Amino acid sequence: MIRASFLDMAARCLHLAALLSFFSGALPFPLGPETGKSPTCGYESCHATQPDMLNVHLVPHTHDDVGWLKTVDQYFYGDRNDIQHAGVQYILDSVVDQLLKNPDRRFIYVETAFFYRWWRQQSSSMKQTVKQLVEEGRLEFVNGGWCMSDEATTHYSSVIDQMTLGLRFLNETFGLCGRPRVAWHIDPFGHAREHASMFAQMGYDGFFFGRLDYQDRSLRMATKEQELLWRASESLTPPMADLFTGILPNGYNPPTGFCWDQSCDDPPIRDDPELEDYNVDDVVNRFVAIANSQSMVYKTNHIIMTMGSDFQYENANLWYKNLDKLIRYVNAEQADGGKVNVLYSTPSCYLQELHRANRTWALKTDDFFPYADAPHDFWTGYFTSRPALKRYERISNSNLQTCNQLEVLGGPDSRKGPFGEGDSQTLKEAMAVAQHHDAVSGTEKQHVANDYARRLANGWQRCQVLVSNSLAALSGSTAERIYCDNLNISVCPLTEASKKFSVNVYNPLARPVSYPVRLPVNGSSYEVKDANGKPVDCQVLPVSSSTKEVRRSRGYALRELLFQVEAPPLGFTTSSVSLLKDGPPPASPSPRTPTSIQNKFLRVTFDPDTGLLSGLSNLETKQSIKLTQNFYWYNASDGNNTHSNQPSGAYIFRPNSSTPFIISSSAKTESIQGVVVQEVRQVFSPWVSQVVRLYSDRRELELEWTVGPVPIGDDLGKEVITRFDTSIKTSEYFYTDSNGREMLRRRKDFRPSWTLRQSEPIAGNYYPINSRAFIKDEEDQLTVVTDRSQGGGSIHNGSLEIMLHRRLLYDDVRGVAEPLNETSDIFPEGLVVRGGILLSLQPPPRAADAHRPLAQQVVLQPLLSFTEGELHPDTRLEFSGLQAALPPAVHLLTLTQWDEDSLLLRLEHQFQTGESKVNSEPVTVNLQKMFSTLKLLGVSEMNLSANQWKDEMKRFDWTPQTGEKPLLKEFQERSVWEATLRPMEIRTFLLRVR
Amino acid sequence: MIRASFLDMAARCLHLAALLSFFSGALPFPLGPETGKSPTCGYESCHATQPDMLNVHLVPHTHDDVGWLKTVDQYFYGDRNDIQHAGVQYILDSVVDQLLKNPDRRFIYVETAFFYRWWRQQSSSMKQTVKQLVEEGRLEFVNGGWCMSDEATTHYSSVIDQMTLGLRFLNETFGLCGRPRVAWHIDPFGHAREHASMFAQMGYDGFFFGRLDYQDRSLRMATKEQELLWRASESLTPPMADLFTGILPNGYNPPTGFCWDQSCDDPPIRDDPELEDYNVDDVVNRFVAIANSQSMVYKTNHIIMTMGSDFQYENANLWYKNLDKLIRYVNAEQADGGKVNVLYSTPSCYLQELHRANRTWALKTDDFFPYADAPHDFWTGYFTSRPALKRYERISNSNLQTCNQLEVLGGPDSRKGPFGEGDSQTLKEAMAVAQHHDAVSGTEKQHVANDYARRLANGWQRCQVLVSNSLAALSGSTAERIYCDNLNISVCPLTEASKKFSVNVYNPLARPVSYPVRLPVNGSSYEVKDANGKPVDCQVLPVSSSTKEVRRSRGYALRELLFQVEAPPLGFTTSSVSLLKDGPPPASPSPRTPTSIQNKFLRVTFDPDTGLLSGLSNLETKQSIKLTQNFYWYNASDGNNTHSNQPSGAYIFRPNSSTPFIISSSAKTESIQGVVVQEVRQVFSPWVSQVVRLYSDRRELELEWTVGPVPIGDDLGKEVITRFDTSIKTSEYFYTDSNGREMLRRRKDFRPSWTLRQSEPIAGNYYPINSRAFIKDEEDQLTVVTDRSQGGGSIHNGSLEIMLHRRLLYDDVRGVAEPLNETSDIFPEGLVVRGGILLSLQPPPRAADAHRPLAQQVVLQPLLSFTEGELHPDTRLEFSGLQAALPPAVHLLTLTQWDEDSLLLRLEHQFQTGESKVNSEPVTVNLQKMFSTLKLLGVSEMNLSANQWKDEMKRFDWTPQTGEKPLLKEFQERSVWEATLRPMEIRTFLLRVR
Repeated sequence: MIRASFLDMAARCLHLAALLSFFSGALPFPLGPETGKSPTCGYESCHATQPDMLNVHLVPHTHDDVGWLKTVDQYFYGDRNDIQHAGVQYILDSVVDQLLKNPDRRFIYVETAFFYRWWRQQSSSMKQTVKQLVEEGRLEFVNGGWCMSDEATTHYSSVIDQMTLGLRFLNETFGLCGRPRVAWHIDPFGHAREHASMFAQMGYDGFFFGRLDYQDRSLRMATKEQELLWRASESLTPPMADLFTGILPNGYNPPTGFCWDQSCDDPPIRDDPELEDYNVDDVVNRFVAIANSQSMVYKTNHIIMTMGSDFQYENANLWYKNLDKLIRYVNAEQADGGKVNVLYSTPSCYLQELHRANRTWALKTDDFFPYADAPHDFWTGYFTSRPALKRYERISNSNLQTCNQLEVLGGPDSRKGPFGEGDSQTLKEAMAVAQHHDAVSGTEKQHVANDYARRLANGWQRCQVLVSNSLAALSGSTAERIYCDNLNISVCPLTEASKKFSVNVYNPLARPVSYPVRLPVNGSSYEVKDANGKPVDCQVLPVSSSTKEVRRSRGYALRELLFQVEAPPLGFTTSSVSLLKDGPPPASPSPRTPTSIQNKFLRVTFDPDTGLLSGLSNLETKQSIKLTQNFYWYNASDGNNTHSNQPSGAYIFRPNSSTPFIISSSAKTESIQGVVVQEVRQVFSPWVSQVVRLYSDRRELELEWTVGPVPIGDDLGKEVITRFDTSIKTSEYFYTDSNGREMLRRRKDFRPSWTLRQSEPIAGNYYPINSRAFIKDEEDQLTVVTDRSQGGGSIHNGSLEIMLHRRLLYDDVRGVAEPLNETSDIFPEGLVVRGGILLSLQPPPRAADAHRPLAQQVVLQPLLSFTEGELHPDTRLEFSGLQAALPPAVHLLTLTQWDEDSLLLRLEHQFQTGESKVNSEPVTVNLQKMFSTLKLLGVSEMNLSANQWKDEMKRFDWTPQTGEKPLLKEFQERSVWEATLRPMEIRTFLLRVR
Repeated sequence: MIRASFLDMAARCLHLAALLSFFSGALPFPLGPETGKSPTCGYESCHATQPDMLNVHLVPHTHDDVGWLKTVDQYFYGDRNDIQHAGVQYILDSVVDQLLKNPDRRFIYVETAFFYRWWRQQSSSMKQTVKQLVEEGRLEFVNGGWCMSDEATTHYSSVIDQMTLGLRFLNETFGLCGRPRVAWHIDPFGHAREHASMFAQMGYDGFFFGRLDYQDRSLRMATKEQELLWRASESLTPPMADLFTGILPNGYNPPTGFCWDQSCDDPPIRDDPELEDYNVDDVVNRFVAIANSQSMVYKTNHIIMTMGSDFQYENANLWYKNLDKLIRYVNAEQADGGKVNVLYSTPSCYLQELHRANRTWALKTDDFFPYADAPHDFWTGYFTSRPALKRYERISNSNLQTCNQLEVLGGPDSRKGPFGEGDSQTLKEAMAVAQHHDAVSGTEKQHVANDYARRLANGWQRCQVLVSNSLAALSGSTAERIYCDNLNISVCPLTEASKKFSVNVYNPLARPVSYPVRLPVNGSSYEVKDANGKPVDCQVLPVSSSTKEVRRSRGYALRELLFQVEAPPLGFTTSSVSLLKDGPPPASPSPRTPTSIQNKFLRVTFDPDTGLLSGLSNLETKQSIKLTQNFYWYNASDGNNTHSNQPSGAYIFRPNSSTPFIISSSAKTESIQGVVVQEVRQVFSPWVSQVVRLYSDRRELELEWTVGPVPIGDDLGKEVITRFDTSIKTSEYFYTDSNGREMLRRRKDFRPSWTLRQSEPIAGNYYPINSRAFIKDEEDQLTVVTDRSQGGGSIHNGSLEIMLHRRLLYDDVRGVAEPLNETSDIFPEGLVVRGGILLSLQPPPRAADAHRPLAQQVVLQPLLSFTEGELHPDTRLEFSGLQAALPPAVHLLTLTQWDEDSLLLRLEHQFQTGESKVNSEPVTVNLQKMFSTLKLLGVSEMNLSANQWKDEMKRFDWTPQTGEKPLLKEFQERSVWEATLRPMEIRTFLLRVR
């Protein structure tokens, strides 16, 4: 009964914010202190409807991109209105004013990144006013994450984080009434099943969006299936991942002729008969016609209209004044038998009416990718757009998780310690901003992309201080720590210059990893010792020619020192490196292509004539496949085309021809053999090269590609892919992950829920790859693990292609108004991008056992920090925050400080049902026995987004057309400390610690 | 002591609105009932300033055109935002909201046409809120007329009316606090001295404007004479027409970089240090630099900045939020020695500080025409632009004055009588709207010009009912009355078809007029009898060929019946017309040019070779001049020019060459001789013709010109003039009227207050002609009286030219965004315009005796109404509202119903000091003996705009640089009923009647 003692039962009747404050000793947030009344927010605050009429729910809303054409702060302030007129500070000012003028009015707000900025600038009286509006349901938060995340290019871990950040702010600020009931992704360009699953687990009662394939939309209109039940997980027991999903009638825009924002030109309602142009009758007639027409494609006598759009309501009076009149004049017709009832509403009020209708709903189990809004307009380019930003975002997540963990493990000294004040909040916010659907998606303007990157860099600067403080606390050494963020291009001034230094490798995974440390050096021979002082194998090798080129020969090191480090779970180990005076010079690369390279696990064969890969064998499982890999580019459409004038751009992928151009049919190669690694270095052209790496102790093959500057001297936009052609019999199927978690089966020229008329044979077969994709047949599964989000497809039998880089010369007319043509100060002639692909060959039943942990290793990479010279002998060289590694099926997703004396912990079962013979089983973890240094005083389980106690999470129940209403299963656990995880389950705990 | 009994002395302490209501029996408007405090509006409500600092008066304002690119109602509602984003309803909504948020904030509002529309839609609680804002001086009205009138093309009579209309609304709505202290003409394109004179007489303490000649501006900046004392009348005793005048620093816009309206893109103040782009220091530095720079060109330690522009403040929050911050951060510098003090202010608060400065000010006695904003950009085209609209506006004024008079004379039955309900208010408002500086000026878009005309037509429709009711009451006949509005092109279905009808001629002048009635007929011979049944001379003549063409031969009459009618003052006479069965056919015109035509007063000679005028003689004064007249066109610049790319357009006149093209060196002529008129009809081309008319009993020569459709098949824009070349030795001088009143001397290539660098030899010598212009030497004065506002100049010795019509192919880049290329349904190939010019030849000392009454006859034309058949014998055929004609020097300017039992009367001395030997003397009128039917119970004198008792009018006193502060002279009158008028004086009386 520890839990009872931890959570006082009376206190639990309060809302979560109060409880959390109770933890930290602060006063509970007072409920409705101004009115003295209980709040009537949420479903209770909805306006009454007319059962025998068509009820039109008008939803005033603004869609505020957390950066797109302007940076998030430019949008907030209304700066750079020459680019786009938009100022969120004024939107919120104005909406609050207008809500106060008429208690019937409603508004929803979505993006907490903006609301938070606004809130902290308000006076306390304004804050009280807004609280009252929220408590009366007049201002309602929907979605409520820090941003409205992209669904194709985001990793689930960062999506959960950004939702948690936003919802926590709402919870702590507004309590119960601040909890959104509805998820609202009106703008993202396609919809991921994993997002739906997460939203379900976050407690949302329903989900609304605006964009889906135009063919899908047509069919759903005809069958009245624009409202449906999405079963978003194959592993989680229904209704855990069931999410009612509504497709909005007009994107997220108002019906034609009824946009009354300052940005619109539709005629206002002119109801003064003494002035010219009286138009009330015309407006009423047009509106009723639209409402009746809309009601024909939805099931119930309730329809929704989104009265707003991008950055609208900066002058909310224009909207509300005319909406007030619209409601008055349309409803006045009821006296003469009119059958339309218009009301101010919110998505949750609309959802409540759908729920009350007690109908059955079509069941959907696949996803909404790819998105096309016209036959030649597939939004599959952004899966890859801005590959450098996509990678930086992914690394930043790794750094943030490390920062979060070390803030917990290092204690309060982490935030204020020998290296000054650090924090994780800055990077948390930067990462949350970067999840926006015009951020990591790559669909923002260049200066905004730069801003996202700068924010991540600033966040990481703040984290570095925290990490240094924490490592100082944990190691007992306050020696200065240096971080080398450019190791990917072998740049690190300390290791290049130093004769003796130590390397601290922090591993944020809950299991030990063997990590190849690769450092730029100038010496020819080094001695490396592990934390126990034991020498370890190391290898010095020349940097590759492409690395030299990328660094622009600025006097950086010409060699790399390579050694493996065994890092403990949630902990670090420290190696020392000393330059040997008389060491042997490193071996020169061999100029010829080896027929094969191999280690204990893998054999990789090459075609000596072409220098290309030719085969892959798993020596443990004794399986082999033919495998050719090469690089190609699609010629991007410039829009001058008989079928359509759609060019390729930041959003759209539209190759001019379905046949890509080969970059070179052969590669110039050289190879290096060593104790740690074997490398075959391939040069395909001055702007495409690759290093094929086989580490001595790894079961996967690493392909480090370098692409760029993509030449455009021929005035042709290029979309660069790498393609794996194998002997695997794929039968038109391949598999991609959804936001880095569950896998979805894809089939060429096919959609599960409608008969596809394929009009773009390449772009229409591209899908987002967040962390991995695979192709398989009965015997062989080749899994490709990526280091960032990319687009890819399987166009030919046995083939898998991944788009790596895009350089385009035309804007694709979706608003960004810039061609995706990345250059920078360092790369004025075009961005060079480097990345890694890991190949794993396994029999299908064992593939997940390999790719699940492998992908997590790519997501959560070790953090290296360096100390010059000899460490103080008292320095603790090794540390683990765990008592033991977690079981193979369990991933530690989140460990972060919550309040002064509480932590947030998320544990995840990282296997799908049936995916692994070994690991797809429930597994139980004892929380109390988990951490090595933390004393846990209490635990309480929360919903996925940590804004509700798990056992208070009550969601609307919905009945699928195909079956019974599923009942939520309650699992009894033996102890509050024992957490059993079922396949794909994530459990979120608030831990009280001393 | 009748006055004392009429106006209770206690009541006089109340403000005017209360008094007026007291007249009509309504309750006085309560002062500040919400606050229980006395109002602190006006100068008392100004913020404190810093005597030892530079005080920057920020004046938040919006400039709301009463029609321009959109109609007045489109602007009010915010309709047609595709043309221009502007919605005045929202501006007022927003400003009131924002004023309530911070009591320091200030706003001024200007155009009552808009405010009135808004006010009547407000709830009573909103009205109370606004009243309180007004009473606290937070919302202040400036100018306050119905519109901001044009100064070049408006007639003083209509300007006074529109100011009266607007100010009366403010007075009745807000009382004392609603009375503007400052005149505010920030946008009109040049400034008329008569406007300044009127503003002075309306009680304004000062006047601000934004536009003046760029050379004038430069000199005034150098000499710090952008603030000055304008002595606006040569006749009125100073300081009666003295007006302090301030020229605003930046037109009416904010300084560069400080526009925070939604329509601007300047950076907002970003003062949150936790967000990106903090810019407070930058903003403060830029602002202080601008303020210091501005203070260098003004005299005192106070400067004004207009923080607003066209239709700004629709979302006032943007402005005020940033202005609040600007004030806070700039003034915060004072703690560190900053010497700039910024404050919210109004023009009157700024004016008060200038007055307190107790300085002397440069004296100006000329005007601010023409206006050029660059060397080749003279805004002298709009003096003539849209000549048809200009004429329609002028006729509408005549109709309105008749309507007003008949509303008084006919009593309450006028408004509701046998012909239904009529009113003068609709036409009053339409006329007031038409005074706007983009209305009668001709600088609006075509659809807006159409709207102005439609409003005038609607107003006249309402007046026709009133006039019919009134004439029925006065005549005793309820027979239907027909109005023929197209007599100028000889269209009147009744007279064309009827064999017997009567003509009622109402004369709105206070003296009898002899008026030539010209009616389209189809018979060949008629008998006309006057009101006494006495036959009068009449003449039937064929309509001119140009009239036939203009009417497009739609079966209209081919003849005109002409006879003179003697109409009594402020009254009517009725003639009867009968078709004679056996009358002689009218004489055919003679095809040859007569050498001369003459009557008792004038001889007009022609050159028989060319058909042109060749001379004019006054037979009474025995003076003769050589006089040639012809028609020409300037080729409008298309903007492709080495000196400048400025084209001619609605605003700008810019001929391509200083030599106009002659239309024809000779005219095809025919002549008609008759008992009533002699006509020489000249045809110059298919699109230019003229009728030279000499009536048997008239001292002036009439020239009826018809111009159009101006051909543009040659792709050349044309600006058509008529030019009079005479033997008068003008020595580069000529004279034009100011708004139809006082005359100003003009000199070629010269400005009285600076050394002109002339850069446009034609356009830079054009001036507005409202009602007349003249040229003279010692012996001869040739006065040209026009029937509408036109532009004109005297480019050559003895020459006077008047621009009649303009047809242009390019927009002149001043915002209207349309070429001035008028067509219509009736004239798809281009507008045809017809007009009249009257020529009067007199010795200079006697010229005014002729042109003063002549011009008034053109302004206030008789109104003709027709009754079919025989009138009932009891019908009263003749009526005069006056006991006797007023003295020749006195013009009855206004007679209109004010309240149920009160009238507004304006009497005017229509001569300037020294202008006439006979008439330029004070003259006394006894009001009680004036009217024939009205019983006057009381009289009280008011200021010119009738919003203040005359004896309560206290204005700021100002000292000119050149002399003593003038003291206001008080004239004692023998009786309240006796009104002495001095030259150019207008006196305004409120009469209580039974």
